[in-house]
Amino acid sequence: MNDNIFILDTTLRDGTQGEGISLSADDKLKIALKLDALGVHYIEGGNPGSNSKDIEFFQRIKDYNLNAKITAFGSTRRKNSNAETDANLLKIVTSGVQAATLVGKSWDFHVHTALQTTLEENLAMIYDSIAFLKQHEIEAMYDAEHFFDGFKNNQDYALAALRKAQDAGANWLVLCDTNGGTLPDEIQEIVTYVKEQLHVPIGIHTHNDCELAVANTLAAIKAGARQVQGTINGYGERCGNANLCSIIPNLQLKMNYNCLPENNLAALTSTARYISEIANVHMPVGQPYVGNAAFAHKGGIHVSAILKDAKTYEHIAPELVGNKQRILVSELAGQSNIISKAVEMGLDINTNNEKTKTIIEKIKDLEHQGYQFEGADASLELLLREAFEEVKTLFTIESVKMHIEKTNGSMISEAIVKINIDGQQVYTAAEGNGPVNALDNALRKALVQFYPNIEKIHLSDYKVRVIDEKDATAAKVRVLVESTGLNNTWSTVGVSSNVIEASWEALVDSIRYALLHMEKVDLKIETTDRIGLINH
Amino acid sequence: MNDNIFILDTTLRDGTQGEGISLSADDKLKIALKLDALGVHYIEGGNPGSNSKDIEFFQRIKDYNLNAKITAFGSTRRKNSNAETDANLLKIVTSGVQAATLVGKSWDFHVHTALQTTLEENLAMIYDSIAFLKQHEIEAMYDAEHFFDGFKNNQDYALAALRKAQDAGANWLVLCDTNGGTLPDEIQEIVTYVKEQLHVPIGIHTHNDCELAVANTLAAIKAGARQVQGTINGYGERCGNANLCSIIPNLQLKMNYNCLPENNLAALTSTARYISEIANVHMPVGQPYVGNAAFAHKGGIHVSAILKDAKTYEHIAPELVGNKQRILVSELAGQSNIISKAVEMGLDINTNNEKTKTIIEKIKDLEHQGYQFEGADASLELLLREAFEEVKTLFTIESVKMHIEKTNGSMISEAIVKINIDGQQVYTAAEGNGPVNALDNALRKALVQFYPNIEKIHLSDYKVRVIDEKDATAAKVRVLVESTGLNNTWSTVGVSSNVIEASWEALVDSIRYALLHMEKVDLKIETTDRIGLINH
Repeated sequence: MNDNIFILDTTLRDGTQGEGISLSADDKLKIALKLDALGVHYIEGGNPGSNSKDIEFFQRIKDYNLNAKITAFGSTRRKNSNAETDANLLKIVTSGVQAATLVGKSWDFHVHTALQTTLEENLAMIYDSIAFLKQHEIEAMYDAEHFFDGFKNNQDYALAALRKAQDAGANWLVLCDTNGGTLPDEIQEIVTYVKEQLHVPIGIHTHNDCELAVANTLAAIKAGARQVQGTINGYGERCGNANLCSIIPNLQLKMNYNCLPENNLAALTSTARYISEIANVHMPVGQPYVGNAAFAHKGGIHVSAILKDAKTYEHIAPELVGNKQRILVSELAGQSNIISKAVEMGLDINTNNEKTKTIIEKIKDLEHQGYQFEGADASLELLLREAFEEVKTLFTIESVKMHIEKTNGSMISEAIVKINIDGQQVYTAAEGNGPVNALDNALRKALVQFYPNIEKIHLSDYKVRVIDEKDATAAKVRVLVESTGLNNTWSTVGVSSNVIEASWEALVDSIRYALLHMEKVDLKIETTDRIGLINH
Repeated sequence: MNDNIFILDTTLRDGTQGEGISLSADDKLKIALKLDALGVHYIEGGNPGSNSKDIEFFQRIKDYNLNAKITAFGSTRRKNSNAETDANLLKIVTSGVQAATLVGKSWDFHVHTALQTTLEENLAMIYDSIAFLKQHEIEAMYDAEHFFDGFKNNQDYALAALRKAQDAGANWLVLCDTNGGTLPDEIQEIVTYVKEQLHVPIGIHTHNDCELAVANTLAAIKAGARQVQGTINGYGERCGNANLCSIIPNLQLKMNYNCLPENNLAALTSTARYISEIANVHMPVGQPYVGNAAFAHKGGIHVSAILKDAKTYEHIAPELVGNKQRILVSELAGQSNIISKAVEMGLDINTNNEKTKTIIEKIKDLEHQGYQFEGADASLELLLREAFEEVKTLFTIESVKMHIEKTNGSMISEAIVKINIDGQQVYTAAEGNGPVNALDNALRKALVQFYPNIEKIHLSDYKVRVIDEKDATAAKVRVLVESTGLNNTWSTVGVSSNVIEASWEALVDSIRYALLHMEKVDLKIETTDRIGLINH
């Protein structure tokens, strides 16, 4: 085992600079607790000098007994002033953090152009600000902004900036590739050189503008850096920060460094997905290590080899990072994909089965129409069960109607459904926040008398995708509905040129899937409608 | 300038192994033409032995006079048979390609486990298959699958596999990191060694399972490889293939290699976006070099420095890869973001303006409600114009109603709108493929008499996002509508707990934006409704 590497997570600070990312103080609290459970060493919570939301976070996080050190972010003092009266530095002190990161200039060009001050004044700003933190017994990290660009432009000045921070008592000197334009070899060479010149431990902070943030971080570690600054899922400005979800397993599993406490690595996937939920950013399906497709196999040849030995097409066991293997269904696959899916479901099938051929043809045809089962396991399960088993028709829809109206104020949506359950006709109506909610409410209201457990499930996600953009008059939409309840989460799909019809199809499939896993209650239908307490 | 690097694009073959990616023969043709215009050297079109769609592609592409060499993909011959009668190899020959890639085993573990044959037979399979292609005067590339894993496990055998291909006359030996588990230093060391042992030019083919595919490709090039196999936007199985959209600019702009013909690099962004449209895969907003946020600035300090000199926070000039700088609006930004957006729009504002403060507060409040203007430039423009200018009220909506019904057959959607244009009331109705289409049709039908040019614009994209998943009963949706026409494309946003209401809001904004850029015709309203030919 090699050295310990310290992880500073800046999802809550630099991560929120990413396009489309905005976190409330509540969100930040939830994420901090999850990061602490994962075992990162520092959690950079925000910039107390920049907004009141971050001040609230630093206040509220004090109620929790974390292992990680909560860290505040700020800049070196303003030019031509002093640290003791700098409003932003004072806010770091009053935020009560144990550690703070101060960003400062190390590229002479930036001192002239962005700061518009002298090279000497910038050095004084660094010294004064770090010394001020140390006087208040705060662990001080100097984030040398644009360090690599600065080093290439004026090596002496870039090193002088680091020396000032070292002289002022900084605990870490963090070299930042702020614009993300540096290559791994340059990083390795420069970090090696810096490490020889200075005695304070080195950190690395990279950005992904060349798609090299992970490689650049690893190169710095190899050259002797011992702190990594990055974000979960690589959130961050422009192309993002260095992605800790790739860096941590690379360091631990491939390079034998210590990062997280023993056994915590298996929490990586759930942490990444939880934070993507809270941040409300869709996780790329193919995200390394933690993505839903990171260990998904589609090609027929790959699938048949994987079934012989997973090591043939998997670089690590997915369980090490808390992920799992998946077999995808697609036109490229041989029958082995669908068969392995069916086996996973416990269906008794074999390759020479006529039903297998029929269902493969049917799935290919549906995919041609725009269906996609890769993200709709429950719809696929229903199709496979119908092909291989006797599946009971639980109910049939006789009609569905909607009225939507807006004159003054908000829009009103009302759904009217007529369904038939074992020969008993139920005709009912419900309102909803929107048409999909109204349909969902009406359908549940009709079924709850027979299946009371239906109240325990709810719609947890809803996605719409236009799928034929090229031929706009015949544009189709694909709706994915995710439902949660009964200790399970499942997804269904609907396709139509009508968004309501596609939603309806996915909703009905979702309910069918749930009912197949539920006990029916034999009730007489009451002629008066029950007032539904069900909502999504 | 360093050496020439040959680019083999395998978007049409390995790229389609990615989850959610499926291309018709038509799609493949369009993409191939775009890749040829970009200037890649080889376009791997598919596997003629695996499906008829690929055979169709190879047939149809012959009608075009491309600079790139069209390349077919296949495997070495089946075990215990001969190449001359191998159905898949014969299909490569009949496909009429100039070049072919043959994948074969070089990892002894795979020979035993996946192929289930002897090490000797695998070597014979490689020799026979490459020799067969050469007899038919096809440029032959040997893709050594799992080469790096094989080299680490049994160096002699991995090299013996390459030597067999070399002896049989292969034009390229392509080293594949099929499982994506290898680190850049290992790649560089192994490629350096291989290059000393063999005289045929080396290629590199990497996967992104450790988020290192780009770095691994660059490491191989530094070690002497001269062909890169990758895909546009990094499409591919699991975590994807090496992303040519990052590799090409890194090689050309940062390492001074020749890849594309002079000046073609500026077509990179449009190529990447076009292919993402055809493949119908949403491009990550932060994708390096070509993403919409690759040169987007959000932090207030960054924005104020960028306005002084773009080089402060941009590693290259975005125009070099055909991308452009964007200033984002967000709660993190100081006023400088909104001001620079307003200046971009030609509005005459300054920081001390009371209107500036009011609009910043308003935008913050709307973002709090769930609006996002980062992807809705036209809605933002309308807000800014209303705050700073006299904007004419073009029409007001008095009421909107919808009826949706499904009994047998497909669902019917009908929209009824009552609008007021300069005191003239128009009351009309229209059907549509779905509710949004019906609303769009009804609104256009009411306005076309006043604004005939409205027929020249159409809805080009429609997105829905559930934004409050945590609090499902009050779940809101955000709808983004993109419209195209009049040589422009613009996006608008609507937010509501009702998907129809949010869509309606975005639609109305989209039409308002269009009308502000259109001449009104002074027509008397006819009392009979014109039959609208308008559709989206």
